[in-house]
Amino acid sequence: MLTKNEIKYIQSLFHKKQRDEDKLFVAEGPKLVHELVNSTYVVKHVYATNKWLQNNPDTKVPLTEISEIELSRISNLQTPHEVLAIAHQAVHQNEPLLKGRLTIVLDGLQDPGNMGTILRIADWFGVQQIICSNDCVEIYNPKVVQSTMGSITRVSCWYKDLNEWVKKIDVPVFGALLNGKNIYTVGKTQEGLVVIGNESKGIREPLLSIITDPVTIPKVGGAESLNAAVAAGIIVGCLVNNH
Amino acid sequence: MLTKNEIKYIQSLFHKKQRDEDKLFVAEGPKLVHELVNSTYVVKHVYATNKWLQNNPDTKVPLTEISEIELSRISNLQTPHEVLAIAHQAVHQNEPLLKGRLTIVLDGLQDPGNMGTILRIADWFGVQQIICSNDCVEIYNPKVVQSTMGSITRVSCWYKDLNEWVKKIDVPVFGALLNGKNIYTVGKTQEGLVVIGNESKGIREPLLSIITDPVTIPKVGGAESLNAAVAAGIIVGCLVNNH
Repeated sequence: MLTKNEIKYIQSLFHKKQRDEDKLFVAEGPKLVHELVNSTYVVKHVYATNKWLQNNPDTKVPLTEISEIELSRISNLQTPHEVLAIAHQAVHQNEPLLKGRLTIVLDGLQDPGNMGTILRIADWFGVQQIICSNDCVEIYNPKVVQSTMGSITRVSCWYKDLNEWVKKIDVPVFGALLNGKNIYTVGKTQEGLVVIGNESKGIREPLLSIITDPVTIPKVGGAESLNAAVAAGIIVGCLVNNH
Repeated sequence: MLTKNEIKYIQSLFHKKQRDEDKLFVAEGPKLVHELVNSTYVVKHVYATNKWLQNNPDTKVPLTEISEIELSRISNLQTPHEVLAIAHQAVHQNEPLLKGRLTIVLDGLQDPGNMGTILRIADWFGVQQIICSNDCVEIYNPKVVQSTMGSITRVSCWYKDLNEWVKKIDVPVFGALLNGKNIYTVGKTQEGLVVIGNESKGIREPLLSIITDPVTIPKVGGAESLNAAVAAGIIVGCLVNNH
């Protein structure tokens, strides 16, 4: 049974202000909650229907059993799905290590769906860290969390003031520009930054100036651009897999 | 000046039932309307603000000047943008030609954003035709139209009963399956179907049985799957660009 105050509080976590204040976030659905509970994230509380509890009898986190109707009152999804978890946001003890690995850098990425999809892409291709400019959409935005399909538990994200951060870069920097090298002919790459630009403005300063390896996805037809997440998937996929 | 009936009618075109009945659709914003007016689509009527009319003085289609407030009443966008057009849906005189070219086949694709993004991918890589199973999201859904960013004017889409249609296929059929050939090592390909499956169920029968060239996007990390549009971008990009 949920109190009015509990319902109100959970709903407040769908707003960035409250999330920032309490350093918490919400994740929904059996797959995502399963991955969260089995990750390094600290789950604060799980609100679950009887069906979920029966399928997950050994879950070792604070739990409240709720009805389907109660779930629909606290859920942010059109079709609520068995379970909702509140978890603590990740706290990074370390700075990202750039040597010897690929890192995705997002420059003002705005769309929550794109952000979540890029976390999935990173996770698929084994890229374990993402640097976001401070004006990117927040990774704990509920739409981002849901669209990562669980990859949020395996990819670390840092938000940075890029003006300061770019001064320390000592690895190759790949970015999609006109007249770059054909991405399908760039060799396999084990170290560097892959910069993905804003959906309408592309890559901006200060990142633009530090690109050492401009790349291009060759265009045959009439489209003006590719979706940012699709471009990320093509570029990262090629760097990891080309011969 | 718009009448109540005009407003009501334009709004009704945001529902599939009315679109199907009248074989019309709605497109919004200067870029999309510009591409539509300069395409093979027949534009029935344009509703435009004074600003748009001043920037497009020579537009040769039936026009009504409206205020910003009137535009916000007929628009389906959160931020209405200068102009809204009603156009006739494409009528195909011919069947798609499969020989000598790449064709994308969508099997039960549900998400409007994915559908629009795949039209953009096709357009970028010069793929000019898409076959959709009858249960795919409709290309004239307003969210699809907007997310194509104009590519809807350059890529032809056919909706088919695939059970009948697959019987006639005589070109290679590529589809992402487990244990297929590494897509990054498949050679450049100028002819064939590229099958993209449903967001959760993947590729289903009858398409599954006609795949001649199973391909795989190698996975390094922990993600269970890639977004359908991202997978489409990677597969089509490789087939068009690999050496």
